[in-house]
Amino acid sequence: MEILRVEGSLVCTLRHPGLQKMSLRVLRDRKGKLHVAVDTCGVREGNWVFVVSGSAGRYACGDPEVMTDLTIGGIIDFWGDDSGQMKQPVESEVLN
Amino acid sequence: MEILRVEGSLVCTLRHPGLQKMSLRVLRDRKGKLHVAVDTCGVREGNWVFVVSGSAGRYACGDPEVMTDLTIGGIIDFWGDDSGQMKQPVESEVLN
Amino acid sequence: MEILRVEGSLVCTLRHPGLQKMSLRVLRDRKGKLHVAVDTCGVREGNWVFVVSGSAGRYACGDPEVMTDLTIGGIIDFWGDDSGQMKQPVESEVLN
Amino acid sequence: MEILRVEGSLVCTLRHPGLQKMSLRVLRDRKGKLHVAVDTCGVREGNWVFVVSGSAGRYACGDPEVMTDLTIGGIIDFWGDDSGQMKQPVESEVLN
Amino acid sequence: MEILRVEGSLVCTLRHPGLQKMSLRVLRDRKGKLHVAVDTCGVREGNWVFVVSGSAGRYACGDPEVMTDLTIGGIIDFWGDDSGQMKQPVESEVLN
Repeated sequence: MEILRVEGSLVCTLRHPGLQKMSLRVLRDRKGKLHVAVDTCGVREGNWVFVVSGSAGRYACGDPEVMTDLTIGGIIDFWGDDSGQMKQPVESEVLN
Repeated sequence: MEILRVEGSLVCTLRHPGLQKMSLRVLRDRKGKLHVAVDTCGVREGNWVFVVSGSAGRYACGDPEVMTDLTIGGIIDFWGDDSGQMKQPVESEVLN
Repeated sequence: MEILRVEGSLVCTLRHPGLQKMSLRVLRDRKGKLHVAVDTCGVREGNWVFVVSGSAGRYACGDPEVMTDLTIGGIIDFWGDDSGQMKQPVESEVLN
Repeated sequence: MEILRVEGSLVCTLRHPGLQKMSLRVLRDRKGKLHVAVDTCGVREGNWVFVVSGSAGRYACGDPEVMTDLTIGGIIDFWGDDSGQMKQPVESEVLN
Repeated sequence: MEILRVEGSLVCTLRHPGLQKMSLRVLRDRKGKLHVAVDTCGVREGNWVFVVSGSAGRYACGDPEVMTDLTIGGIIDFWGDDSGQMKQPVESEVLN
């Protein structure tokens, strides 16, 4: 799973019916590129999240025929090494 | 899902029957590379769209055996952050 | 689908039975990297083609258990924008 | 399968139910980018591991509906060439 | 399918049971990056091979639940253009 930061919500006048009523978010990767993902977690702008790609992203929507290849899997608080030291996903850590 | 810009329609004299009568578009990514995608939304040249890759793209065609790995999922109008500020997918935003 | 140029045919003394009797081509992408794809269209050296990756490539072979992740989907003649202007897939267009 | 190094464990207050109770690890690739993977092997910080992506990663969890696209496949000790010479996955070998 | 060169065999003390008794090889791509693939062809160090990724790699193992995303599809001898001229996969050709 990749680590991305939430930029905002996507507005589309014309949208494929296969996406159903799924909420779509715009996310930015460490190189500044924008991605679109289905959000079932209720993320907010600025959150660091990890996203699930491919067919696994469809199972996450409760319906494997939903037309997505990227779904948000969770909001990252921090990660810790074996010594118990905690690291927050600050930009310098993720983007280096 | 990735964000691409529509360049035009593709003309092929020889085309695999697995693509059926699907309309094919040429799209350009932020690095200038060209891609080919199935279009079920009726996009026009210059539209910013997001595309769905992998097996999800096949479900979007109404027949999971259609031979595509990229299908247009919707036309992007803009995206907004939590404060309600709207951003259009201008080239500098998407391509930075 | 990606756009590649046909370089020639592949000769293997040892080949996995899962590829059956499929014809294999060597193709070059815009960065000069070589790829191997199944050809069911009968392409020739120098043709510009688009290729289908992932599970969709298997359906294209008439048998979803054929062991390929890349299959040629069609030979590109040109593409046109909404004004009717036609563009050929000359190297400068595809490779820029 | 790709080769990555374990950085630590991931802590998420909000996590998609499709990930069930799977243990999540943070791993770093040779370019310094961070990835998130399901761990069923019990890896430790500093281990060199190989990871399985796509639908194969789901089978590794014992339930093909687990929402992951990356699962740790094993801990690498070393690799050997035909002459029997052994090489450890030291950073300079993997990251060059 | 991608073209890689065999570096050697992989030794793992801890390995996921989903990989069964599959033989694992270490391969190097044209940028020097190392990959791990299942080998059912019996390749040797120094061989140029093409590898099959994704779900197709699992079918190649005779059991679609084998946990691999990369399987060796064949050993490359050379490729030929329409004039009958043969090219060997020498490093300068593949890696340029």
